[in-house]
Amino acid sequence: MARVHFQQDLDNLVAQVIETIKLVENSMSLATRALLDADQALAEKAIDTDAAIDGRCREIEGVLIELQMRQQPVASDLRLLLATQRILGDLERSGALAKNVAKQVRRRYPDHVVPERMRETVAEMGDTAVSLLNKAGLVFAEQDAALARELEADDDHMDTLHRALLQQVIAGTGTDPVATTVDLTLCGRYYERFADHAVAIARQVIYRSTGELA
Amino acid sequence: MARVHFQQDLDNLVAQVIETIKLVENSMSLATRALLDADQALAEKAIDTDAAIDGRCREIEGVLIELQMRQQPVASDLRLLLATQRILGDLERSGALAKNVAKQVRRRYPDHVVPERMRETVAEMGDTAVSLLNKAGLVFAEQDAALARELEADDDHMDTLHRALLQQVIAGTGTDPVATTVDLTLCGRYYERFADHAVAIARQVIYRSTGELA
Repeated sequence: MARVHFQQDLDNLVAQVIETIKLVENSMSLATRALLDADQALAEKAIDTDAAIDGRCREIEGVLIELQMRQQPVASDLRLLLATQRILGDLERSGALAKNVAKQVRRRYPDHVVPERMRETVAEMGDTAVSLLNKAGLVFAEQDAALARELEADDDHMDTLHRALLQQVIAGTGTDPVATTVDLTLCGRYYERFADHAVAIARQVIYRSTGELA
Repeated sequence: MARVHFQQDLDNLVAQVIETIKLVENSMSLATRALLDADQALAEKAIDTDAAIDGRCREIEGVLIELQMRQQPVASDLRLLLATQRILGDLERSGALAKNVAKQVRRRYPDHVVPERMRETVAEMGDTAVSLLNKAGLVFAEQDAALARELEADDDHMDTLHRALLQQVIAGTGTDPVATTVDLTLCGRYYERFADHAVAIARQVIYRSTGELA
């Protein structure tokens, strides 16, 4: 009976993580729309979501520690708990990065952060970021190690976009206000780090299924 | 006897973490000197150290998982292992941030990344970063929760320096090349994040001694 309960506890844990992943996706999606439309209301939503994400991560971490103390899991169950603990760290940081994007909107409102000529690149970085995390969520839900490896290629695409953005920033010499240069430089970094965290989440799944630290 | 061994294993683990903290401190220290003197040889050293840091973290993580599997620790021992796992993530990221600073030096060499008027602020950010991690190491070694709380104040000082640096970046409008604006914006962020990780390490010690997630 205790064993059945434990399996149920683990299933609940996985479900909670997947829900939190969706919340983070949604937050980055909101933040990007806020950024592209200089929409302060959306920005505030993304900023508020960060606290909700932290709260959930903290909650899941509590469950996780309690399970470890109470059940003394071994082998694959223990690996699931350890992988989940790392993933929570990635989700917290990802939520904070979405908040950072949104705070740029708040800071410059009603001005636009993104100059017209960079809109397309920023939009694509936003889409790529959310799609990477979405795939990482699938990888986690399905324990699909093959799909996990695919994410590395998607991350290369993000790096290409990031380099393109920095080129566009530098091309703005003498025309863009310095604040724009600063904002877009940081913004590019936020998306790039967000993608790195998605890759890290997927890697934990490889660890979970093989015991190899990727 | 097994119990004696386990305690010894834990002591070794703590010693290895402390050594790795010192390695990361040293790496950021090298990177900052490289940055201020446009010294490529020092920059390469910091870049190489990052791989060494990753290797050590991976090694410690292996030990940590093995201990958890083999010993099924409870309560405070389990909390030590969980805290250590989080700390390894912070150390890996901190090493990567030192490498990021060093890579700026490599990219601009033989030019200087930091304009004369920002040298002092950058030097102080470098010192503050290393001193924060050094304190975090002490906190970890001594399990000193009171000192852990002090780090939050030091981190506020880093935030003040970071804001000052961004002001100086913005004051350079029209005189600095855009590459300088981009580099210094990112550089400021690297130091600030490095400090955040030091605070996170110290917080794990509070968790370890109280079981409260800070």
